[in-house]
Amino acid sequence: MSKLKGFQKLTFTYEAIQTWFNVLQVQRCRGVTIPLTEAFNRVLTEDMVAKEDLPRFDRSAVDGFAVKSEDTTGASQPKPLLFRLSEADVLPDNGPRYAQTVWTGNPIPKGTNAVVMLENTLKKDEKIAISVQVAPYDNVSRKGEDIKKGEIAVKAGTRLKPYHIALLGALGNTEVAVTEKPKIAILATGNELAQTGTERTEKQIYESNRVMLLAMCSELDAEPLDIGVAKDDVSEISEKIQIALKIADAVITTGGTSIGGLDLVPEAVNKTGKPGIIVHGIAIRPAMPTALAMLENKPVIILSGNPVAAITGFEVFARPLICKMLGLPKEETRPTVKAKMTRKITTALGRKNFVRVKVTQKNADFTAEPVSAKGSGTLTTMTKANGYVIVPENREGLAEGETVTVNLFGDIETENPNV
Amino acid sequence: MSKLKGFQKLTFTYEAIQTWFNVLQVQRCRGVTIPLTEAFNRVLTEDMVAKEDLPRFDRSAVDGFAVKSEDTTGASQPKPLLFRLSEADVLPDNGPRYAQTVWTGNPIPKGTNAVVMLENTLKKDEKIAISVQVAPYDNVSRKGEDIKKGEIAVKAGTRLKPYHIALLGALGNTEVAVTEKPKIAILATGNELAQTGTERTEKQIYESNRVMLLAMCSELDAEPLDIGVAKDDVSEISEKIQIALKIADAVITTGGTSIGGLDLVPEAVNKTGKPGIIVHGIAIRPAMPTALAMLENKPVIILSGNPVAAITGFEVFARPLICKMLGLPKEETRPTVKAKMTRKITTALGRKNFVRVKVTQKNADFTAEPVSAKGSGTLTTMTKANGYVIVPENREGLAEGETVTVNLFGDIETENPNV
Repeated sequence: MSKLKGFQKLTFTYEAIQTWFNVLQVQRCRGVTIPLTEAFNRVLTEDMVAKEDLPRFDRSAVDGFAVKSEDTTGASQPKPLLFRLSEADVLPDNGPRYAQTVWTGNPIPKGTNAVVMLENTLKKDEKIAISVQVAPYDNVSRKGEDIKKGEIAVKAGTRLKPYHIALLGALGNTEVAVTEKPKIAILATGNELAQTGTERTEKQIYESNRVMLLAMCSELDAEPLDIGVAKDDVSEISEKIQIALKIADAVITTGGTSIGGLDLVPEAVNKTGKPGIIVHGIAIRPAMPTALAMLENKPVIILSGNPVAAITGFEVFARPLICKMLGLPKEETRPTVKAKMTRKITTALGRKNFVRVKVTQKNADFTAEPVSAKGSGTLTTMTKANGYVIVPENREGLAEGETVTVNLFGDIETENPNV
Repeated sequence: MSKLKGFQKLTFTYEAIQTWFNVLQVQRCRGVTIPLTEAFNRVLTEDMVAKEDLPRFDRSAVDGFAVKSEDTTGASQPKPLLFRLSEADVLPDNGPRYAQTVWTGNPIPKGTNAVVMLENTLKKDEKIAISVQVAPYDNVSRKGEDIKKGEIAVKAGTRLKPYHIALLGALGNTEVAVTEKPKIAILATGNELAQTGTERTEKQIYESNRVMLLAMCSELDAEPLDIGVAKDDVSEISEKIQIALKIADAVITTGGTSIGGLDLVPEAVNKTGKPGIIVHGIAIRPAMPTALAMLENKPVIILSGNPVAAITGFEVFARPLICKMLGLPKEETRPTVKAKMTRKITTALGRKNFVRVKVTQKNADFTAEPVSAKGSGTLTTMTKANGYVIVPENREGLAEGETVTVNLFGDIETENPNV
């Protein structure tokens, strides 16, 4: 394969990531304690244990009257039973029937074991007519029924969603210990690149991978740091990488990574420190010239300058890295959907192929239309597609009508929605 | 149904939202211009039109040599053809074969129409040996092939993802006009509630809906404003709602909404202004006592105090509202998955039922296990579940083994993953 000249060999994706992670020994980033109200989407660094039962007492689940359930035996709409009202902390154990007003969330008084809903009662002078029978603990949330003291409420490594925050709040937590957002430095390289907003020469194009990769870091709730654009110059690239290493937990570059005349980033990385490049040349398409490195014990990812190749390299290498740095127990994957290929496509044997598709829903059926196979430099294939299919190394393509799993990165359009 | 005493009738969900939206006439929030690098997840207020062709010139897609494709006819590995190198802006139209060095992204010089990859060439003294035939425009990205000047690059109402940002960057945009984040005020009510971090009495519980709803707003990229906790007092609730209306675009309250002794929020809303409550009592479970209102031309949503009912009310009413305020063309829905019910469940006829389930994947099969049907006050049913199934008004439940569509709000656990 003359195309691969320059690469001794291509490394399979899973081998590449394993080799790289073995050298890196990625650690979770530092922890930080923040207010619970700011904890959405952050990742817990420690198990949060219930410090008390929830509820911490038998409490009413409705507005109504707490009673001894036995006292309601025989009560019905035509034959309601009369109860005296009591405001005592403990209701008398024998004698006449007693009831006590309770609102949702109130503890039920001692001597009662159920609540009759307001709607099933009628006030009669000083008494209350109850027209329904209740069983023990009807309309009562029992002590510890939601969670018991000492149980783990939310596990370390959980990305906090609104309902985790609700549970932690109900248990009295005002702060939580979460992972600091990993700081990811983004550097674009290439003489042909002009930063948007600056003057460009006749031969230059506006840089777009940098702004895209900054956003891809935000998408995972990491903190992107913008290192700008470097010329195709080993010293300049090395200097900017050194600046990045000072302020970031990991560095991602884009451009200058294939084995071409001005592809200088791997050289610059190796010049900057040890061990430098660990893997270069991956059996993946697009993104073959991706390189994985380590400098100052920090991960460095050298992505292709082709936008779609850069996205693919980010998905395959930066995503699992950032998930590890966040302290997530496993990689966060995109939502998937099963869809039928609208046409046959051919892919390269021996490579993991990322095929962009547009998924459309028609009633209960999902179809996946391949979006232009040509080139990895076409940005609109990404805005037209809403997902990608991974074709494994041992396949040469996908058949028309084949059911595939699509990893979704955009919304699905619906034809004739069946709502 | 004695349970519904107090509600004249229950309104179907779709009627409720239609009636409310008809009165509200929800407008998109104000627009604001922000740097492209900060635009991730924001919503465009106007179509972004390509100001130039992309690429703006025929450019090389690889590192190599630009040539006239005709000149390569007959070139092969055993029989390479020799080309002279030229650095002229325009390559000679006849005479000997010429080639010019180009790097990825460079314009190809006039007089050439294809690029030979570096790997298929060999330097021979002052000349270049080319060992492969190329067709016209091989390895060339053609002018306007990605997008043409005047075409819409990204439509108004698009939530900007990394690849939209890349395309806008490549087209030279440094700023974008997006919707301001809708400011949503959150107020919890109830004598039984203590704000976490404050002292609570013997009978109080820690408030958790407020912190949850703040996070649910963040999840949609709205800006939550914390109004705190109000006692069950019409004047205090009304005062806090007035404060909220001064600073927010919409107000969400939780608690005090069913027709009970201390359910005072609807009363407070009606006391605060016109038209006040528009719909109260929805044919939905949980979340039946939800009320929809308008004050000072702003939407007000009165959610139940039960956490799961509050989540449901938010999903059904606040989510479409916020999507409209953001300027999204349609409601953003959660990812879905088809799964088989592990057991039968019974639901209320005439209500839209939200059933929490835990979806598990085993190889290619997804199962949905209902997570405790009991009560809507149980927070751990939300942390144990990862999605909900909507059972429509004309069904009385779901059968064991039935295939259902699950709306996912959490990660799916995988047994024996087939990776």
